[in-house]
Amino acid sequence: MIKSRSIPISNILRKFTQRYASSQALATDLKNIVGNDNVATTASVREQHSHDESYHAGHVPDVVVFAQSTDHVSKIVKYCASKRVPVIPFGTGTGLEGGVTAPKGGVCLDLSRMDKVLSVNAEDFDCTVQAGVTRNALNTYIRDTGLQFPIDPGANASLGGMCATSASGTMAVRYGTMRENVMNLEVVLADGSIIKTAGLKGRSRKTSSGYNLTNLFVGQEGTLGIITEATLKLHAIPEAVLAAVAPFKDLRAAVNATVAIMQSGLPVARIEFLDENMVDACNRFSKLNLDVAPTLFLEFHGSNSNIEAQGRIAEETCKSFECLKFTFATETDRRNELWKARHNVWYAAHALRPGSKGYSTDVCVPISALPDMIQFADNEVKRLQLLGLTIGHVGDGNFHVILIVDPNDFEEIKRVHDFATILAKEALRMNGTITGEHGIGVGKKQLLIDEFGLHGINTMKIIKKALDPLNILNPGKIIDIEKGF
Amino acid sequence: MIKSRSIPISNILRKFTQRYASSQALATDLKNIVGNDNVATTASVREQHSHDESYHAGHVPDVVVFAQSTDHVSKIVKYCASKRVPVIPFGTGTGLEGGVTAPKGGVCLDLSRMDKVLSVNAEDFDCTVQAGVTRNALNTYIRDTGLQFPIDPGANASLGGMCATSASGTMAVRYGTMRENVMNLEVVLADGSIIKTAGLKGRSRKTSSGYNLTNLFVGQEGTLGIITEATLKLHAIPEAVLAAVAPFKDLRAAVNATVAIMQSGLPVARIEFLDENMVDACNRFSKLNLDVAPTLFLEFHGSNSNIEAQGRIAEETCKSFECLKFTFATETDRRNELWKARHNVWYAAHALRPGSKGYSTDVCVPISALPDMIQFADNEVKRLQLLGLTIGHVGDGNFHVILIVDPNDFEEIKRVHDFATILAKEALRMNGTITGEHGIGVGKKQLLIDEFGLHGINTMKIIKKALDPLNILNPGKIIDIEKGF
Repeated sequence: MIKSRSIPISNILRKFTQRYASSQALATDLKNIVGNDNVATTASVREQHSHDESYHAGHVPDVVVFAQSTDHVSKIVKYCASKRVPVIPFGTGTGLEGGVTAPKGGVCLDLSRMDKVLSVNAEDFDCTVQAGVTRNALNTYIRDTGLQFPIDPGANASLGGMCATSASGTMAVRYGTMRENVMNLEVVLADGSIIKTAGLKGRSRKTSSGYNLTNLFVGQEGTLGIITEATLKLHAIPEAVLAAVAPFKDLRAAVNATVAIMQSGLPVARIEFLDENMVDACNRFSKLNLDVAPTLFLEFHGSNSNIEAQGRIAEETCKSFECLKFTFATETDRRNELWKARHNVWYAAHALRPGSKGYSTDVCVPISALPDMIQFADNEVKRLQLLGLTIGHVGDGNFHVILIVDPNDFEEIKRVHDFATILAKEALRMNGTITGEHGIGVGKKQLLIDEFGLHGINTMKIIKKALDPLNILNPGKIIDIEKGF
Repeated sequence: MIKSRSIPISNILRKFTQRYASSQALATDLKNIVGNDNVATTASVREQHSHDESYHAGHVPDVVVFAQSTDHVSKIVKYCASKRVPVIPFGTGTGLEGGVTAPKGGVCLDLSRMDKVLSVNAEDFDCTVQAGVTRNALNTYIRDTGLQFPIDPGANASLGGMCATSASGTMAVRYGTMRENVMNLEVVLADGSIIKTAGLKGRSRKTSSGYNLTNLFVGQEGTLGIITEATLKLHAIPEAVLAAVAPFKDLRAAVNATVAIMQSGLPVARIEFLDENMVDACNRFSKLNLDVAPTLFLEFHGSNSNIEAQGRIAEETCKSFECLKFTFATETDRRNELWKARHNVWYAAHALRPGSKGYSTDVCVPISALPDMIQFADNEVKRLQLLGLTIGHVGDGNFHVILIVDPNDFEEIKRVHDFATILAKEALRMNGTITGEHGIGVGKKQLLIDEFGLHGINTMKIIKKALDPLNILNPGKIIDIEKGF
């Protein structure tokens, strides 16, 4: 007994000492590559880089290194490959599936200092940015061009991170997701080599040239390569914008109205559903005075001559589904107030229960299945006695149930897990997907197998193994290479 | 001398006899798999499957096999893998880069008998088809739903083939290319396994679930897998359609007008440029009476209330670039006559020179570079004394110079090659791509290296080698695996 106790303790101590020594050696080597100012090993910086905004358990990296250039990234990856050390790219840490945690330790590669807008081609409606430029920073930079980058996941995420997770958000129903808006990427591969996914200088609107590497690297969550630059489509700021709010007597009426609006072909710019819990949370957090009822937030983009017609069609449709009210928000201030409240739902939901952590489901289904799907979610939240608030990009068939949990209540966390699994499987049964925009991260690896089946997952593994044979790029995310390969 | 002559001749004879014997054995084995009626070895059927519509040299396959089901395709691929025999998928043979030729012999896998529309979900604007369904067949099938599949490469191509080459055409400026319109694919991989690229049952409008396999298989030209089914987005047939024709005094004025229309954000549905040679050929072939001048064909899709406004904006823009005329084609018959003529340009160009073969360039550049690019092409055609006619999907920055050559005049063919290379390199210099919609096939493999550089090409090779380790899937297309890997 004495022996069996003493060995593990000394093992643990030796392991800890080795890990600490190797962390120090890592940091020293990395300082030689990128300079002292770009390497951090303090507990606070490492902790800050150990987690995203979700309830997924954080794991601290051994070192945080701040890249200032693509050359830095290439050298860091080459070094990590030589040492067989994991590299985890980090943008703003606003992800929701644990994509930036470091379960195997290693080097967190923070790209936030790569924050330059490299070019704006207003006449071609495109721009090229470094990976660390945020969505808001880009829109501020280009505000005098009459153009915008409309993809809006809520958080002020980095554009590199948005590429890596295939983000979308409220505007996707009109402007598409990152998949449709990324024209080219600069990527550092697992051996440190640098590629451009759509040609060395390519920024044409379409191409059939070779394999579509761009869309292989959009959504790969840092597991196939580190995105260092992105060429993005820009869109004209609309001449006229009109918003509206429509509360309904029940959720099914609101969702049915959405389905009818989408099927009419109206080019709605945003159409967001909030259940009554969510409206209530918004009222409290954002000091609004909305009717507490299942509600649609709508926005229309167009010309001065057609914007009112768009609004009227939506109004008629909502009224035919017996909405309780249909109120236009014509003034910019009122519109901004509404969308700011919409964007703060994550924080509004957390504010209901101090000290809580949130988890957001992210299923997406064909639009015709949406009423049944949201009703199903509502029933299950009640059955499992969870605090769940529903918010959805319903025009795309995508919605989130934000579950507010006590991070110390393991029984409650288990119910959240059960709910997420039940919901995802129901979405698959309805020809949907387990994630419309958040990605897989650490949270949905098992469900991914349900979605794709063994041959599909095997295809992903073949690609991962071919492009990252040492499994150093964000290991343990999307697919587990060690298990069963 | 005698010895050195006699050995090659006996070698050739032996090789021929071996190849013939192995072809017969292949056919016998394949008949056991798919039945006698689905295997052809006659010279005429093999010749018909040896080439597409381009001037690329045809190479006959050893056997042509007609798959009737995904199960057939899987079994055929498994069999070919066991024998290390190439498998070349074949749709309608309307490609333009030699993608269906069989330079290494092997099995041509004709998918035209997989011609069932499997499902139409009108309320979700999607459908699922077998790979052999043609574009026209689908649109005929769904004509009562109020929906259409608008992607229109001109030829009545199979939808599987359009997925495989990432086709687009005249409507892409409004509705996107295949990349934006394919939601899911069923693919048979090199080992015969069957995957669905966006989940086993997935047909949601967006997804961030795992690697984007769908867009890896769109545009892979049969080199990574055989596409057997496709789930496609459908679009509402517009309430109102308006077409217009605008001849200009010179090509630069016409292209500058296009750039201005695109930059205004007008949601034009088609905007096609024809140079004066092309207009002349259309007049002759399609019995039209157009002014022989650089010309834009335009089309607008919208509602009865906004269609005229769209047309007026385009008219004002064209007039500001001093168009010679601007004539609306409001009647359906006149509109169809124009677009039929547009679709027949390939044949109209060939009719100028009986017995000729055509080659079409396919560069695509950012819209701001388009006037210089088309002018450059025009100058080079004249300098090299070629018969070249220019036609373009200019709203996307994509245009074709159709070169009409005497297939027996090797000196002329060399000049065509030189022209295509010069044009592609100029497009790359202008941040464009060597192919907007035709793909690489056998014709542009060297230029692909110029476009992507060695690390980019190497990434494609890694993926090809990982997914098709025996190099049996359409070998010799897109990239050469044997060379330099």
